[in-house]
Formats: sequence, C-alpha cells, structure tokens
Amino acid sequence: MKLSLNTATVKKQWTLAQAIDGCARHGIRGISPWRDKLAEMGLKKAVAAIKANDLTVTGLCRGGFFTAKDWLDDNRRAIEEAHELEADCLVLVVGGLPEGSKDLIKARERIKESISIILPEARAAGVPLAIEPLHPMQAAERACINTLEQALDVCDALGEGIGVAVDVYHVWWDPKLEEQIRRAGRKRILGYHICDWLVPTRDLLNDRGMMGDGIIDLKRLRSWVESAGYAGFHEVEIFSELDWWQRDADEVLKVCKDRFATVT
Amino acid sequence: MKLSLNTATVKKQWTLAQAIDGCARHGIRGISPWRDKLAEMGLKKAVAAIKANDLTVTGLCRGGFFTAKDWLDDNRRAIEEAHELEADCLVLVVGGLPEGSKDLIKARERIKESISIILPEARAAGVPLAIEPLHPMQAAERACINTLEQALDVCDALGEGIGVAVDVYHVWWDPKLEEQIRRAGRKRILGYHICDWLVPTRDLLNDRGMMGDGIIDLKRLRSWVESAGYAGFHEVEIFSELDWWQRDADEVLKVCKDRFATVT
Repeated sequence: MKLSLNTATVKKQWTLAQAIDGCARHGIRGISPWRDKLAEMGLKKAVAAIKANDLTVTGLCRGGFFTAKDWLDDNRRAIEEAHELEADCLVLVVGGLPEGSKDLIKARERIKESISIILPEARAAGVPLAIEPLHPMQAAERACINTLEQALDVCDALGEGIGVAVDVYHVWWDPKLEEQIRRAGRKRILGYHICDWLVPTRDLLNDRGMMGDGIIDLKRLRSWVESAGYAGFHEVEIFSELDWWQRDADEVLKVCKDRFATVT
Repeated sequence: MKLSLNTATVKKQWTLAQAIDGCARHGIRGISPWRDKLAEMGLKKAVAAIKANDLTVTGLCRGGFFTAKDWLDDNRRAIEEAHELEADCLVLVVGGLPEGSKDLIKARERIKESISIILPEARAAGVPLAIEPLHPMQAAERACINTLEQALDVCDALGEGIGVAVDVYHVWWDPKLEEQIRRAGRKRILGYHICDWLVPTRDLLNDRGMMGDGIIDLKRLRSWVESAGYAGFHEVEIFSELDWWQRDADEVLKVCKDRFATVT
C-alpha cells in the first residue's frame, strides 16, 4: 500500500512520535514530517523511531521560504535533516512577496537564484529538492511559484537534483495539467500529495477536504502521474481547521486508508 | 478620465438608477451594469437614463453560466440587452463544474461549444463577447476558464467577435500574464477591470480590496494592457462584504476616483 501520511493531517492531535506510532499501527508505510514537529521530537529520536518502524520518509516539509531573513541557514539545516531522515525529497514552499513589495517578477527571480544557491549542497547531501507549486490564491503569502509549468521551467533552468511535488489541491484546476505532468515525467515528479477541494471552500489555507469529499477527479489525476512514470507514495496532506483537525487521529487515519483504497 | 463603475461595487447600497445618477454626479463617464439590477430598473428606462447622462456602457455583466438549464435563452436575452445598451461587450462568466460532475475537461469542452452557438448571434447583434478568465479558486463554482492563455486559446479557435475581459483580481498571479496580454493585443482585450488583492483575503468571493489597499502592482499591469494597445475604460469592480458594501456609496465613488488617479 503506497499510502503516506503527511503529519500536517493530524498536527493538532499528535506529536511526531505519536504519528510514527500511528502509521505503524495502521499499516501506513510512508510518512512526511514537518520540521516544527521534528524539532520538538529531536532529529535523532525521530530517525531511530522511523527506522525501527521501517517507514519511508516520502518528504520533509519544508524548506524554501526564501523571503525569510535566515533562509540560507534554515535551508541548510533542512537539507541536513532530510539527509539524516533519508527523505525522498525536501519539499520547497518557496515564499510569496517580500514584506512591502508588489514586485512578483523580482520575487520569482530571487527564488530561482536562492534555489540555485542551495541546490549544490542538496546534491552533495543526496537530497532531491521538490518545488511545490502552490495554488494561485496563496501566491502573495506562501509561494509565488503557482503552476507546474512555472516550476518545471525553474527545474529545467537548474538541471539535476531538482523536481516537483504535485499536490492535487494546488494544481487540479490547471488547464495545462496533463501536458505538464507528462513533461515532468518520472525524473521530475518527486512527490504526489492528495486531498480534495471542497465546495464551498471556507478558508484559503485550512479548509481542505478528505479524498472523495470534494470535486477533484482523483482517479484521473492519479492516472496522469502514473502514466508519466511516477511509482512512489501517495501522501495525504489535509489542513482542516473545522473538520479533520477536530477528530480523533486514529479515525482520521482509518478514513485516509479507506478513501485511498476506494476513491483515488 | 477613463474610469468606469461596475455597479457590483455599490450593489448593496444603490439601485441601477442611483448608480447612473452617482456616476453623473461624480464625473465618472463609464458604467457596467449587472443584469439583475437592469431587470429591476427596466431595460428601456436604463437605456434612456444612460443616454441622458452620456455614459459609456463598458460592459454588461453577465452572460455565460453555460451550466444553467436555460443558458441559451438567457444568453440570447443578454445579447439583446447588451445591444440595446450599446455595451462595449457582454462579459461571459462561463460557469464551473456541472452539478455532481468532476469532469473539468468535459466542462471546458461544453463551454467552448456553447460559446460557439451564441457567437454568431452576438456578431449579428454587434455585441462583442468578452470571456472573463476567473481566478482558479473559483474554477469549481463560477468559471472553469481560469487563465488568459486558456481564454485566448478559445478565442483563437472561435474567430472574430470574441475577446477577453482582463480583471486584475483574477490574473495578477499568472507567471505568463505579460506574455498573454501581449498576445491578446488591442483586438482581444475588450475590457480591463481593476481592484486589489488583500493580504490576508478572508473570503474566496467577496473580499476584494480597493485599488492601493492590496498587493497587485496596478501600474505595471496597466502598462502591459496599454502597451498591448488597449485604450478603453478602466472598470472598478469590488465585491466587498465586510468593507466597501458597508460604506456610503458616494464615499466609495470618491475613493475610487482618487485611487484611480493615484495608484493605478
């Protein structure tokens, strides 16, 4: 079963130690931790617990945020952590507009430059970098790489050791999605994240749906990434203030497994 | 002064008759009415009042919604109304996914077919059709044409008498925006709508900002549409449940004029 749990899905309920135990208990073989939870648990302990349970780390969330003051040190630490965890990739949420700026073109140029600075270090550490294009509604605040095409243009400019994380929530609407997934191919698709788009959506960040509860054609998108050669894990990542973060985490994991088997 | 008032900006405060008077009083020379307000006032009365005040109708909002049962009749009526108003264009908000469907590809095909059915009638009536690509966050519910590139591909497939309405709110984030505005050129840009993107944005539909209150680089976008040859009106369209719909409408118009002169 190629299901992975992005720990943000149960971030209000569980520590990373609990999430690792939970995955093992529910037979979920992949995990993708967030770095705040990792810091809380301690890297060594986390590595040991993940190894003891034989989990695959499908990604580390997250590097990027190149708008932050300490972005270089922070990304270096993230690469080191991803290396220690033997993560499939370090996910980059690249950051939006710098404080007080409206210059999206310059912001995007700076992001490309910043990635080019950390990429050699990531390569040396054996950590693939995965640019995650975020939904255009998050362009100002979280990431101004907003389409797969744009992310792949950056990858092509930078060469080896870099690819994309395809999150259905961010890309489902894109008229060029199938074409760009094909373009990305096995080489560039480093992660595949699933959840659903709710109608209505009540919040721009924390109102994602469980697979099957929204309008994303998950089977079709899966067929596209698999046709492109992707054979890795399917990582559930649900930010849900009003629903899934309020539920018992064991119930959440059960529903994730069930929906993964039936609607994706 | 090439400023136009989209009546949605004061829809909670004013009838169409009041909006026409308001424009005249404030020296705003363009107006873009919504059809519910037009029906309320009556087409003949509206035409007479608009002519008496020598206002340009920069667009009629809206045709489209090809997912509705009565879409064909409704669009025919909209074309007739736009003709009577001598509107610069009929704005098409094309509709999202049909009820119960997740098939975005089919929805988009159906939209293209539907436009091709009404286009000859619009041409005969001398009414240019303006596809308005909506922000991807509105793809499921309101319009699954979501980028300028996608809209222009539809225009190119359908030929003469059709173009786009460029609304900064919907397109500001697009990495291909400058390129696609250039591609559109004078021929295809039938309308230019302005407002701003607020940080944070609290609602996916009704939390637009007044020009200058958000992060859109309005001067740059304006330079792009003007460089492409657009010389028409700049239409203010602000849906704002929590702010501008709560204010005195005369104050709203004053601020629109002031911001148009200073920040766009």
